[in-house]
Amino acid sequence: MRRNPRFLVALAGLAALAGCGPRPAAPPPAADLLPSWREGPRRQALLRFVTEVTDPSAPTFVPPAERIAVFDNDGTLWAEQPVYVQLAFALDRVRALAPQHPEWRTREPFAAVLAGDLERLAASGERGLLELVMASHAGMTTEEFAGIVSAWVDSARHPGSRRLHTEMVYQPMLELLAYLRANDFRTWIVSGGGVEFMRPWVERVYGIPPEQVIGSAIATRFEVRNGTPVLIREPAIDFVDDKEGKPIAINRILGRRPILAFGNSDGDLAMLQWTAAGAGPRFVGIVHHTDGEREWAYDRASHVGRLDRALDEASAKGWAVVDMKQDWHRIHPEPAP
Amino acid sequence: MRRNPRFLVALAGLAALAGCGPRPAAPPPAADLLPSWREGPRRQALLRFVTEVTDPSAPTFVPPAERIAVFDNDGTLWAEQPVYVQLAFALDRVRALAPQHPEWRTREPFAAVLAGDLERLAASGERGLLELVMASHAGMTTEEFAGIVSAWVDSARHPGSRRLHTEMVYQPMLELLAYLRANDFRTWIVSGGGVEFMRPWVERVYGIPPEQVIGSAIATRFEVRNGTPVLIREPAIDFVDDKEGKPIAINRILGRRPILAFGNSDGDLAMLQWTAAGAGPRFVGIVHHTDGEREWAYDRASHVGRLDRALDEASAKGWAVVDMKQDWHRIHPEPAP
Repeated sequence: MRRNPRFLVALAGLAALAGCGPRPAAPPPAADLLPSWREGPRRQALLRFVTEVTDPSAPTFVPPAERIAVFDNDGTLWAEQPVYVQLAFALDRVRALAPQHPEWRTREPFAAVLAGDLERLAASGERGLLELVMASHAGMTTEEFAGIVSAWVDSARHPGSRRLHTEMVYQPMLELLAYLRANDFRTWIVSGGGVEFMRPWVERVYGIPPEQVIGSAIATRFEVRNGTPVLIREPAIDFVDDKEGKPIAINRILGRRPILAFGNSDGDLAMLQWTAAGAGPRFVGIVHHTDGEREWAYDRASHVGRLDRALDEASAKGWAVVDMKQDWHRIHPEPAP
Repeated sequence: MRRNPRFLVALAGLAALAGCGPRPAAPPPAADLLPSWREGPRRQALLRFVTEVTDPSAPTFVPPAERIAVFDNDGTLWAEQPVYVQLAFALDRVRALAPQHPEWRTREPFAAVLAGDLERLAASGERGLLELVMASHAGMTTEEFAGIVSAWVDSARHPGSRRLHTEMVYQPMLELLAYLRANDFRTWIVSGGGVEFMRPWVERVYGIPPEQVIGSAIATRFEVRNGTPVLIREPAIDFVDDKEGKPIAINRILGRRPILAFGNSDGDLAMLQWTAAGAGPRFVGIVHHTDGEREWAYDRASHVGRLDRALDEASAKGWAVVDMKQDWHRIHPEPAP
């Protein structure tokens, strides 16, 4: 059958109208997609990279299946000051459980938490923090834990802004995630945070589904309870998804090397190096916290999110160091009306 | 603007013509999709389940994002007799490396391998096997290992049929994978085999991408070598994805409970239980090796792929036990012409 070319053109037009035509080679007008990013070298570099890898006629073209973008979470997608959100969760959880644990009133690190004395808590060191995490994160089924996290995330507020933590996300990064997905990237989280602390809310907040979340994990135990199989969260660290752990987990779980990675601290350096070292076009970005007025300004000397070696390497390698103060029109989303 | 309904109908028709309209509620005619499955209760149960979860008007409808199907590999998607394919790989690898290891000629378990004495190898027990795996699977970068596996898989042949191992896959299971994907399922492997032993070939053979492969893993170490970051495979087991390890890894890596699971041995029982225990419609299947003529017949007493407790539970719970002899027209794909 000879096809009528006019009919085919009309068909293609209608199919596009129906939202399912072939994707155009060039990304849609950028101004619509990254409105919170100020015109400048970082925005330009992002747009250029996405154009390079999505243009089927370019030698830099990357097939959609290989368009993997990985993002750290704390300090990259949402605020990590004055303390990691997951630590705030652990503290609240200890307070909530305290009535069932009268012995905590005289036992560190719990006594420090209940007294609201974070300096004394810090003095209990890594061992104290670990005990805190175990008391707050273990001893229940995975489904119970997801429920506890969801309820907390729906109500807990940032101590400074009094906004929900899920509103302390970075608007320009939300736009970047959506822009990448509109260009057939798959967006993943690779965070030092607990994988089961993130999954209950990251799909709603970032549009990232559970199977694209890599994080730290505590051990779980499979058990059949009254005929029903459950997974029990055990008080033992199974994997710390930080520093060298990040490329290890990317290789182990994702099994592809990302072509774009974003982090904000030395804990992300190995992941950024791993991403940068692949063949073909790569985008490596760092969120640099430079805005002491609208957010926080910290880098080399910070106890949270220290950015020191990665900043040197970014400068040596020409990675995109996003200057929050300079590059972002807006930090957080508008409050819901 | 008031829309012209006739125009919308025409648009929908054209969009469907262009291959991008809404998916029809009922699956396409089944005879086209599972040609190697004989008419009978197992085939009917599969078709019924897929219809139930894909019909948007049914109370049993499952959104595409939650249509997760998990498959064991050895004995479920490809043959595992007379020995696991990965063990055959390890043996070949030891033979290939032997010239560089003169000490192996007198050291077990290597001496047994080089003498072709599998009984003596078996007598070296778990410790011997572990040593064999470490000598053959560790000590190189992840990329080097992927290259070694690819080269082996492209040439190694099954000792009985003399076909490539990748031709010893089960044709009815290939059809099932494709049928599920045509109905917007995502298909995953959850295997006791090594994750990095599977990834180099499962996409080509099963259509399953690297990020949907869960398996056992040895430890890796991140290292920057002459400025290039690499992951070195270390001689230490990191995770055994078998028995209770399967639901643990599904929860940890996939983060969703599957709605369909297929296995063939007691090593899959925990995964099948975990899948069955979710709310809503579930399909739990077991490949029962009953065909001693076209394949192998083994279950309760087998040293490879023992199927004993899971067979009892399948019978008690009404899971679908696929009788290879009865239910499958064909076992393996036609040889390429």
